[in-house]
Amino acid sequence: MHAYRSHHCAALTKDNIGDTVRLSGWIHRKRDHGGVLFVDLRDHFGITQIVADEDSPALPIFEKLRVESVVTIDGEVKARAEGTTNANLPTGEIEVFARSVNVQSEAAELPMPVAGEQDYPEEIRLRYRYLDLRRKTMHDNIMLRSAVIASIRKRMIEQGFTEFQTPILTASSPEGARDYLVPSRVHPGKFYALPQAPQMFKQLMMVAGFDKYFQIAPCFRDEDARADRSPGEFYQLDFEMSFVTQDDVFNAIEPVLAGLFEEFANGRKVTPAGEFPRIPYKEAMLKYGSDKPDLRNPIIISDVGSHFEGSGFGLFAKIVDGGGVVRAIPAPGTAEKSRKFFDEMNDWARGEGYAGLGYATRKGGEWGGPIAKNHGPEKMDKLADELGLGPDDGLFFAAGKEGEAAKLAGAARTRVAEKLDLIEEGEFKFCWIVDFPMFELDEDTGKIDFSHNPFSMPQGEMEALETKDPLDILAWQYDIVCNGVELSSGAIRNHRPDIMYKAFEIAGYSKDEVDSNFPGMIGAFKFGAPPHGGSAPGVDRIVMLLADEPNIREVILFPMNQKAEDLMMNAPSPVTAQQLKELSLKVVEPPKAKVNPAEVVEKN
Amino acid sequence: MHAYRSHHCAALTKDNIGDTVRLSGWIHRKRDHGGVLFVDLRDHFGITQIVADEDSPALPIFEKLRVESVVTIDGEVKARAEGTTNANLPTGEIEVFARSVNVQSEAAELPMPVAGEQDYPEEIRLRYRYLDLRRKTMHDNIMLRSAVIASIRKRMIEQGFTEFQTPILTASSPEGARDYLVPSRVHPGKFYALPQAPQMFKQLMMVAGFDKYFQIAPCFRDEDARADRSPGEFYQLDFEMSFVTQDDVFNAIEPVLAGLFEEFANGRKVTPAGEFPRIPYKEAMLKYGSDKPDLRNPIIISDVGSHFEGSGFGLFAKIVDGGGVVRAIPAPGTAEKSRKFFDEMNDWARGEGYAGLGYATRKGGEWGGPIAKNHGPEKMDKLADELGLGPDDGLFFAAGKEGEAAKLAGAARTRVAEKLDLIEEGEFKFCWIVDFPMFELDEDTGKIDFSHNPFSMPQGEMEALETKDPLDILAWQYDIVCNGVELSSGAIRNHRPDIMYKAFEIAGYSKDEVDSNFPGMIGAFKFGAPPHGGSAPGVDRIVMLLADEPNIREVILFPMNQKAEDLMMNAPSPVTAQQLKELSLKVVEPPKAKVNPAEVVEKN
Repeated sequence: MHAYRSHHCAALTKDNIGDTVRLSGWIHRKRDHGGVLFVDLRDHFGITQIVADEDSPALPIFEKLRVESVVTIDGEVKARAEGTTNANLPTGEIEVFARSVNVQSEAAELPMPVAGEQDYPEEIRLRYRYLDLRRKTMHDNIMLRSAVIASIRKRMIEQGFTEFQTPILTASSPEGARDYLVPSRVHPGKFYALPQAPQMFKQLMMVAGFDKYFQIAPCFRDEDARADRSPGEFYQLDFEMSFVTQDDVFNAIEPVLAGLFEEFANGRKVTPAGEFPRIPYKEAMLKYGSDKPDLRNPIIISDVGSHFEGSGFGLFAKIVDGGGVVRAIPAPGTAEKSRKFFDEMNDWARGEGYAGLGYATRKGGEWGGPIAKNHGPEKMDKLADELGLGPDDGLFFAAGKEGEAAKLAGAARTRVAEKLDLIEEGEFKFCWIVDFPMFELDEDTGKIDFSHNPFSMPQGEMEALETKDPLDILAWQYDIVCNGVELSSGAIRNHRPDIMYKAFEIAGYSKDEVDSNFPGMIGAFKFGAPPHGGSAPGVDRIVMLLADEPNIREVILFPMNQKAEDLMMNAPSPVTAQQLKELSLKVVEPPKAKVNPAEVVEKN
Repeated sequence: MHAYRSHHCAALTKDNIGDTVRLSGWIHRKRDHGGVLFVDLRDHFGITQIVADEDSPALPIFEKLRVESVVTIDGEVKARAEGTTNANLPTGEIEVFARSVNVQSEAAELPMPVAGEQDYPEEIRLRYRYLDLRRKTMHDNIMLRSAVIASIRKRMIEQGFTEFQTPILTASSPEGARDYLVPSRVHPGKFYALPQAPQMFKQLMMVAGFDKYFQIAPCFRDEDARADRSPGEFYQLDFEMSFVTQDDVFNAIEPVLAGLFEEFANGRKVTPAGEFPRIPYKEAMLKYGSDKPDLRNPIIISDVGSHFEGSGFGLFAKIVDGGGVVRAIPAPGTAEKSRKFFDEMNDWARGEGYAGLGYATRKGGEWGGPIAKNHGPEKMDKLADELGLGPDDGLFFAAGKEGEAAKLAGAARTRVAEKLDLIEEGEFKFCWIVDFPMFELDEDTGKIDFSHNPFSMPQGEMEALETKDPLDILAWQYDIVCNGVELSSGAIRNHRPDIMYKAFEIAGYSKDEVDSNFPGMIGAFKFGAPPHGGSAPGVDRIVMLLADEPNIREVILFPMNQKAEDLMMNAPSPVTAQQLKELSLKVVEPPKAKVNPAEVVEKN
């Protein structure tokens, strides 16, 4: 018989009754029934109930051992007594009578319990992550993560993509977030940087003639922690394709994402491949007040400014007259909601720094509230009819400058839906946000600047740059959004140096500035570059959505804490004088700050 | 029709004759046949011949364009004229008559050619890697690498392993090679380290209860470059299993490696799974003079010291008398080799720093050379018969202290086989080296030390440590070797703190020293650790073997050069004062060395 096991701990069923078996695992739980001891033996696969009574030499050993000790037991499979079977366990119909036990590893007193999964401070959980990971929820999350990534790989390969590894020790980039730097020993005073994303490399691979690249790519940003971003490293499904249009990118990746989500949806509905709505940025900002709309939320925002031109409600009339906007956020079925419900929304908006959130109540078609009163019921009816509202649907109003009002409307849309429990749970709703503007006006300086990514191809290419108002030019740029979570942005890239120089010229940069800031890319594009594009959905976020975990650290094996520390491995840590000397570095006393930088991070 | 292509450049056959098609790609070659221009259009998939004559508006455009420009052509598929078909190309029976051409990207004058693959200095190749990668050999190598890695993943998953990602920003380890360090911004004066291997993490995963882990793991060592090691980063097939014996590890991984090599062998023979020879370390050092023997080499070394006790060849007699050894390396079929062949081997051995390499020639059973003369033909016959040698097989002798003699014998075995062309090409011969000694005697200090890995489980566990001569204790440690290349070492780990303390005690370390040097591992093992073991074959080396490339940089997409520089991305590079300030670091002028450290590296 094998030294450690004839079966794993989820394998035995009533078909094995009478078999002599060997099992190994952790003592999950012990229950002493006076002379009979029940042990739940746990391994990666599951749990098997072990029994020892006074006839068994295993009894005194089990009695002495703490839970989480590792043992190998030899025994005999028996049917459980009637009434003691457990239908929730694959092994719930049997138990193993222990003839002997071999202690592989005795557990000391535990700093945190494993069985039962009671809440424990994150600090302890991360310090003893190897115990935390024994808990079923964490174990399942991590196994889900692995299954998701394996499935992504399979699906990308099926779509004709090939996975390549790009360098992790690379150059600091002049743009983007803060780099992690790695001092060079061989070249004193010089540093590598860890890649914020393999953006340059994947584009250079297209220039090198590889057709469809992907990578489950580790990315590094020295940024403060957030619930949906781990400090340090995170993973992207980085991909890029040559000789493609935006449609080709969508057609390649929709089956991957839809198929992946369907595979792990556990009955939750998923937007089918080929049916991801494509929402222009402008429309998204109007209808959802956001470029990452949660489409599970049925509320649609409308622009109702024209209704208030010369209105009896002077505040809105004045805003519209001054070039501002009024946005209406329906609050469906709120006839029975108290005044307090509406007032609290207004208070919330003020708390967020807005001037306020107007509202009109409605019950059986009767309007209430100061806006409706001043605007007049006929005009209110007209507005409500235009929006397709029923006689018991109230309304909130966000008014002011377009950008601000849209943002407030978007936040109110989410809050109203949450309060009214309108968000359809158990669904994954995907959409593309498309047609981002290429340029925007900096309101402070009056200057035209890139609105998102300067390296995206403008729609209409050179002709558009030469003939259109820059603020009317759209980019071949797109975001993929699921349930209000932005999984990634992507673009058809600008692969033409002439068009790139022109775009930068519009944003106020000279050819020399472009050449000196982006020499690698511009240089490469001069030797024959194919049209190309791609994107990079966040893997951690995909797993968070599928695991329904709001905290990214619940889906990462060994995450750092919010202070960017690995408590288990004790990183970061001081290094020796010799190590610093080899790197030609000296640590400088940081300026005395009033607060510890680590504490500042913690507050975020 | 699609904006860029109806077909890729390897797709069209005579079945398409008459079709109107659109192709995109790079102008690989142009041939001007006076008014008729032939263009080889290349993409990731292959090459299609394009034709333009004076009837085609494409002609003047093609004439003007440099090779490596990217174009989209519209045209008509035609049969090639008789006698001009190319059986080596999938598209060799057709050509496409260009009706129009759309220039996607015009190439400037190239710093290195793509077509023809002429030799070019590595510096230029790495600086313009995106051009170098367009060359067929590099393109094929990189695609092979990707296919190998995808196949490894598939095979590991089929064997029940699950892939997990371990952290890349982690703690500096007290052992091993030099770490790459990453300064922490949030914790001034503290550093992360990039993992030399995920050793700790994979063992902690076993402690956490995951059963079979693997990862195509990026590893980082700040070491000087070698032909088979890239500076900076490299990849391992890192794996670990719980509740296993050494046999289980072998049985799990032999099918993966054998299957992988068979898949990409292209007709080369591969040692079948289940048949990898297991050679004890001691036997390997005797028979092959190496713990990474190339089994394609048929020469077997023998210990022949006993033959020389009291021999007429006094030098060997004296060496044997003094406790040294004499090792015989057969040189089969050397009857017709001149004296010079043997003398040159001796010169080579002296050049390597050895005292010399003795020899005996043999032709039709007649012995030659001073050793045979002094030892006498009868005794030489006896020795040769024992070794199973024929009448035309010569012999070399390596004599001296055991370690030195074994090493010389091993090097001579390789050299003799190379000179005699005995190494069977076109084969992949695997073996395991097993039964490494746990401890060794430090000849300088007379102290007992660990011979390889202190964290391996000693064979016989605690009992062996308590009862055996430490120098007789073997470890559950093993190397996997293919064609003389060590792909990895591995071990069944010591998961028992009591056994670990005892092993370290034998090597002269106190419990406190163990606790303070390896707190993470020892700490974790106290809360219930399963028996576990694994290994980590080098992915880059596997690809080198399969691609038959002696230089690791030929199988890596974007490698650094031997000075640890990425010439394309310009890494490492200086950083800004602001970046240094944020990291609380100052660059110190390195001590004036007589040689530039970068140059020192280059010499290796």
